[in-house]
Amino acid sequence: MRDKREPFELSATEALHSIATDELTSVAWIESCRERIDAREPDIQAWSYLNPDAVAQTTTRVDQGHGPSIPVGVKDIIDVYGMPTMMGTDFHDDTPVSREGGSVAIMRAAGCLFMGKTVTTELGHRHPGPTRNPHNLAHTPGGSSSGSAAAVADFMVPLCLGTQTTASVIRPAAFCGIVGYKPTYGDFDKSGILANAPTMDTLGIMARSIDDLGLLRSILLEEARREVTDVSLSDINFALLDVHPWNTAEAETRRVIEALADDMVRAGARPVDLTIGDQVKRLIELHRLISGYEFGRSIAYERTRHLNQLSTVLREGRLADGREVDSRRYPDLIREVAALRATLAEALKVVDIIISPSAAGPAPASLESTGDAAFSAAWSLAGNPVITLPLFKAADTAMPIGCQLIAGFGEDERLLNVSQAIMARFQ
Amino acid sequence: MRDKREPFELSATEALHSIATDELTSVAWIESCRERIDAREPDIQAWSYLNPDAVAQTTTRVDQGHGPSIPVGVKDIIDVYGMPTMMGTDFHDDTPVSREGGSVAIMRAAGCLFMGKTVTTELGHRHPGPTRNPHNLAHTPGGSSSGSAAAVADFMVPLCLGTQTTASVIRPAAFCGIVGYKPTYGDFDKSGILANAPTMDTLGIMARSIDDLGLLRSILLEEARREVTDVSLSDINFALLDVHPWNTAEAETRRVIEALADDMVRAGARPVDLTIGDQVKRLIELHRLISGYEFGRSIAYERTRHLNQLSTVLREGRLADGREVDSRRYPDLIREVAALRATLAEALKVVDIIISPSAAGPAPASLESTGDAAFSAAWSLAGNPVITLPLFKAADTAMPIGCQLIAGFGEDERLLNVSQAIMARFQ
Repeated sequence: MRDKREPFELSATEALHSIATDELTSVAWIESCRERIDAREPDIQAWSYLNPDAVAQTTTRVDQGHGPSIPVGVKDIIDVYGMPTMMGTDFHDDTPVSREGGSVAIMRAAGCLFMGKTVTTELGHRHPGPTRNPHNLAHTPGGSSSGSAAAVADFMVPLCLGTQTTASVIRPAAFCGIVGYKPTYGDFDKSGILANAPTMDTLGIMARSIDDLGLLRSILLEEARREVTDVSLSDINFALLDVHPWNTAEAETRRVIEALADDMVRAGARPVDLTIGDQVKRLIELHRLISGYEFGRSIAYERTRHLNQLSTVLREGRLADGREVDSRRYPDLIREVAALRATLAEALKVVDIIISPSAAGPAPASLESTGDAAFSAAWSLAGNPVITLPLFKAADTAMPIGCQLIAGFGEDERLLNVSQAIMARFQ
Repeated sequence: MRDKREPFELSATEALHSIATDELTSVAWIESCRERIDAREPDIQAWSYLNPDAVAQTTTRVDQGHGPSIPVGVKDIIDVYGMPTMMGTDFHDDTPVSREGGSVAIMRAAGCLFMGKTVTTELGHRHPGPTRNPHNLAHTPGGSSSGSAAAVADFMVPLCLGTQTTASVIRPAAFCGIVGYKPTYGDFDKSGILANAPTMDTLGIMARSIDDLGLLRSILLEEARREVTDVSLSDINFALLDVHPWNTAEAETRRVIEALADDMVRAGARPVDLTIGDQVKRLIELHRLISGYEFGRSIAYERTRHLNQLSTVLREGRLADGREVDSRRYPDLIREVAALRATLAEALKVVDIIISPSAAGPAPASLESTGDAAFSAAWSLAGNPVITLPLFKAADTAMPIGCQLIAGFGEDERLLNVSQAIMARFQ
């Protein structure tokens, strides 16, 4: 039976299958996504730059005998050849860049077609861009990868790149009701990307399915596709993260995550108690200090030349946090992180995954703030891989509520497999 | 008594003192350096780009009432506003960049005047540029920060930025007979710098005196200048690194470093035995694997678009090494580094510094290779701060032989202070 959905509604995996079976052409897929963007962009405002030649580039590729083009969006702190990088400001040079990021170059060589640059908050920090949440235009899409989350959620493209220093992939993905993936620290190359805090900056992926995450992950790693393996929930150990700040989430969010834990037990998964509250608490404080110190240096160009054009929240937020640290204290903090990472790795040996809320609740009804980032900070600094799954919706507003899954350092494949099993059973 | 030396011969610290006491003007200092460059560049070939407006920019700064300009050179894998970044290739876009590195922006705000970009090997790897060793034009200056070392050694500028992934600051500084400093990993910001292997890439400094190192270090850290404190050699514990590969250095190099150890004992320093041979050996192998894997991704743009324009040594060296690692093995290697760093930190608690040869011997009589990098690889990956001091010269050729001092992670101030004491007594 022919798929009745429009091409833009398909996941990348589905579309590639339809192209392989001659039910869809590569050009028709790109055209469909582009039409969706044109129709919806006035409302969503997910893009800071649109590739005017996307369809023509695809036609050329097809004419040259290349495989299908996969349409993707790229957060506008990442350099893409031939497009400007504005980083959520209006003062950067809008000349198209001539050297692109390593991960972008790898994706291009594998056939990804860059539909454009997606809206980022100012310099990847908290001051919001114009993007709105596709589920309700009065709500924030989250940040800092705001446009990437909204574009995927609104079916403009199946995949986008985002980046995470605190919660900048997980939170917008959760708020927009899609799958968001922050891999193990160092998993993907991050050259050609605006640094915020190099000790924790991580390139991540927005998608609507775990299969698509796996697809783009294998592209970025330049490795043969490893199919997401079927995992039985009765084979896994899991822990419910019931420490601060997760135990301060909104009542409904706590309730749905706790109900998921109960459902997982009923499905045969074994609950395990973890006592990592002290380590997590300290990681969150170390995250604040280290990210502040490193951010002040990473954006020294903007700080020294354009200070008056930067937002108050940037100047009085992370930049101010950084001034609590100096060069004598900084290496001590870095050593402390290394020790905590080792302690956590030991503690996490008894679980396959940890489950927790992805954020305090669904997306707030405001475009002035991108919401609370505390629910992901510890894992960003610890370097563990994290996925948010769109499992729930708020009873009153139908806004999405995400469930955050955390795995051990380097256990990305296991995290994807378990995520697939949970999505299959509980979505 | 008035200094009889030309301004270009002064260290930055000396020149700033002369300007403060009205014996020298800021403009005369810049003019003198520029004249030195013009006179010597045809022989040395240290620069890939020269700032045509250096003198005019200094005049403007003085007219505007700013403090003196400190002339510096910047390795051409680091972005400087208004200058092209060619990275030791001929295929990169030569459009001047509009966003500069964080450390460059910090230096500019503190009054540094960028005289130009210095020659780097191809993409910071091993294929040499045209630069020659000022001590003998038939000898390599070392690499990859070739132009930075040669420009400082030849009195063109008192200070240059270099970067180190393996030995790219220490080796050229040792070969050119100057002071080279690779700080603790993460000490200086490295945004706006071509990544080679982010786990170990470090921004470093070339100078002709420890005072100048301390000056630029305080500028880069945006902290008040901490004077280099007088340290008595009788207060320090040190170890002579007599493990592979240092114990395979050329006979004369081993002899002068061993004689220095004896001299230090006579001066009251306490020799300590360290048994870190196994850790160091493993770090060197891990360095090869991790830097190879990360390099292939960092230069994905060049590799996917310009492979045929890259040198054989790049394609068959580090890129080939990287193919021994995949995404499953990589996080294990990273965890192993973390464990080794912790073990080394514990072992190094009993010493203030380790001394060793900076390289196998003086600069080889060749311009085809930049020499053996193995003598610094372990410390680049471990993240420890390292300084090379120009203490010796080969008896037959008078080519410089460097002594490498290594301190504990984060112990950069102690390293500078001990270096000063050793320079004062033994240079």
